[in-house]
Amino acid sequence: MTDSTHSPDLKSWVSSADRHADFPIQNLPLGIFSPKDEGPRAGTAIGDKVLDLWAVAELGLLPRADVVPLENPTLNAFFALPKADRMAFRQRLSELLSDEQYREKVEPLLYDAADCTMHLPARIGDYTDFYVGIHHAMNIGKQFRPDNPLLPNYKYVPIGYHGRASSIRVSGEPVTRPNGQRKAPDEDAPVRGPSRRLDYELELGVWIGPGNALGEPIAIADAPDHVAGFGLLNDWSARDLQGWEYQPLGPFLAKNFHSTVSPWVVTAEAMAPFRKAQAPRPEGDPAPLDYLSDAGDRKHGALALELDTFLLTAKMRDAGEAPHRLSQSAAEHMYWTVAQIVTHHASNGCDLRPGDLLGTGTISGPNDDSLGSLMEMSKGGKEPITLPNGETRGFLEDGDEIILKATAKADGAVPIGFGECRAVVRPAP
Amino acid sequence: MTDSTHSPDLKSWVSSADRHADFPIQNLPLGIFSPKDEGPRAGTAIGDKVLDLWAVAELGLLPRADVVPLENPTLNAFFALPKADRMAFRQRLSELLSDEQYREKVEPLLYDAADCTMHLPARIGDYTDFYVGIHHAMNIGKQFRPDNPLLPNYKYVPIGYHGRASSIRVSGEPVTRPNGQRKAPDEDAPVRGPSRRLDYELELGVWIGPGNALGEPIAIADAPDHVAGFGLLNDWSARDLQGWEYQPLGPFLAKNFHSTVSPWVVTAEAMAPFRKAQAPRPEGDPAPLDYLSDAGDRKHGALALELDTFLLTAKMRDAGEAPHRLSQSAAEHMYWTVAQIVTHHASNGCDLRPGDLLGTGTISGPNDDSLGSLMEMSKGGKEPITLPNGETRGFLEDGDEIILKATAKADGAVPIGFGECRAVVRPAP
Repeated sequence: MTDSTHSPDLKSWVSSADRHADFPIQNLPLGIFSPKDEGPRAGTAIGDKVLDLWAVAELGLLPRADVVPLENPTLNAFFALPKADRMAFRQRLSELLSDEQYREKVEPLLYDAADCTMHLPARIGDYTDFYVGIHHAMNIGKQFRPDNPLLPNYKYVPIGYHGRASSIRVSGEPVTRPNGQRKAPDEDAPVRGPSRRLDYELELGVWIGPGNALGEPIAIADAPDHVAGFGLLNDWSARDLQGWEYQPLGPFLAKNFHSTVSPWVVTAEAMAPFRKAQAPRPEGDPAPLDYLSDAGDRKHGALALELDTFLLTAKMRDAGEAPHRLSQSAAEHMYWTVAQIVTHHASNGCDLRPGDLLGTGTISGPNDDSLGSLMEMSKGGKEPITLPNGETRGFLEDGDEIILKATAKADGAVPIGFGECRAVVRPAP
Repeated sequence: MTDSTHSPDLKSWVSSADRHADFPIQNLPLGIFSPKDEGPRAGTAIGDKVLDLWAVAELGLLPRADVVPLENPTLNAFFALPKADRMAFRQRLSELLSDEQYREKVEPLLYDAADCTMHLPARIGDYTDFYVGIHHAMNIGKQFRPDNPLLPNYKYVPIGYHGRASSIRVSGEPVTRPNGQRKAPDEDAPVRGPSRRLDYELELGVWIGPGNALGEPIAIADAPDHVAGFGLLNDWSARDLQGWEYQPLGPFLAKNFHSTVSPWVVTAEAMAPFRKAQAPRPEGDPAPLDYLSDAGDRKHGALALELDTFLLTAKMRDAGEAPHRLSQSAAEHMYWTVAQIVTHHASNGCDLRPGDLLGTGTISGPNDDSLGSLMEMSKGGKEPITLPNGETRGFLEDGDEIILKATAKADGAVPIGFGECRAVVRPAP
């Protein structure tokens, strides 16, 4: 799956792309951006620049101008392309930004990223959140159900539930602390007010490609072709609302007040060098049922992707301090692969559509320094963490900003990053 | 809220509208239809005809031609109108179809309903399913959690969860029996195959009107203005998949393979004469928290709406028999009002958008002949029901067709109906 677009020898004529931590020419993520004072359009990030793909298409330099329209710009039409067409598109972008012969025409179509406004990359039809971080499932399960942390279905069923598409916002938009009902076990009746246990969740986002017709499942061998790309997802969670409302039908107001996604879609093609073997299941775990089992997916189904979470409090911001890294996790802690969650989702005939978003669920690692939520780090608020400046946190306070980052690394490959997924907490209305 | 459009004396010049069980001139439901050999467009049902609203707008006879476009026709733009504009639109339709002076211009724009194909009325951004049928919640709760049928949150929180928008289909499209994992309590591991416990659920659908911006809740006094209309909803459910997958995050593949909605949106304005006082909560039940409490809503929040479910088996169909009525329920068995579920949904700041669909959850009555699912009627399949032709059913079989109907009735008002919400079960792939 790797090709010349991944070659470490490949250089862009965009000088800032050289050794850029996130966006070297080996990445070429796609997004929807507005140049200063202009309307939104599709673009690709290269170094500290953004290339206007609509303008490139207008010059006749792209194979599929129809997928980067200026009117109602989203990546949905690009996501809908067959895998081969998405690869050809990437190949072309790579040529345009590396071959000096295109520089004269293309360079005027670059904007400084710092001057651009980013938008949601797609019109999200449906958003589904999974629960594939087994360490997270154990940690949270212990708090909600001390006697029964990991339910018997977990190792057979890639557990997922439908989330809210309307309230997904792009990185940078502040999140408003929700009001809601909460009831402590020792209280007779619930009270309503601003959530006191606001949390983040570190997740990987999966953007769906072509998808399937209703009633026609996706075989696991075909599942990778239906993944257009990846992003970072913060599934903001109000733990007190969640604890009171979630039975029997699952989380609702505890989650649907806001979810934040990163603006750049790192394509499945860009991630090809960073696919790795899925770790064997622990001794004694059942094998996946046939429909979720595929030798190819076991060989290539995991992602070599580091996931970092940072916190910047209002006090730190005022003091000019840098964000503090709360944890470092990795995508390899997913119990189910991306192909498995895609196949499971469509296995009953449910139709996935281009631009649908799947969240993996919180990806925590096995150690205290690799946890993907404050709920886990502070043991449900009982053991608040202490920050370098002496502040403590059981849950998030107003003014806190969470910043998620991801970097894909593999031997022989130029590392690529996902950019940031960040948002600051505003007070409840 | 009632006006001349509801007058029992009002007659349409469309003769079949007179005493029409579903679509007298007092109803005027909206939908998207295709006349034979022509493309989809907005229409209103009148008697056994459908009026082409795009064509009426082209003649300059409608106040808002922009909400009934021929290109990408949906009712989303109509739903987004302020309440007053939706009322004016209804008023105008009522005039056009009752006043003889318009007959010459308008009559050529009527089609025989029997020749029309119906489509989904709106582009559904998000679909949320509630659980407000307290008898259903008790009945199902007993089967999933015998010791704990109604959870402590039920009488405080209008329980809801997000469903799948992509797999909602209009009445008439067959539903394919899903494959999925199931595990009986006495089995060591799950097996996968066609669902053996396929069921229907009788629900009322609520089409959202203007909605709210993210972070800005909807006060309960304002909630009725954000309801554009109503329909029937069959929330097909695979009980065996549900039992195994639903903990801890709620139903997923047990529900998202298909949901069926009726094509005609009975507007909130048409339902005005059928609003009635919400029954007092049973002695000992807690009062709703403040944000869900409104004297106006208590006075007018319930709907005088009979809900009927019919079954037509393949054998009955082959014998030319009429569908058998399985049950008769009523919207008054909702524990929470429509305004309460709308307000609760947005109470944490979650944004509702025009064309979003809310399901009430299964509306069962208190008696054996008013149950809204086979799961309840057959006591989880243990006591199959016997049909008049001698067939028995614990759950649905391939070839079975479920038909939901609804009729609004009130003293002094002409009854109006919802049309049908029907679909036949096809075998699993």
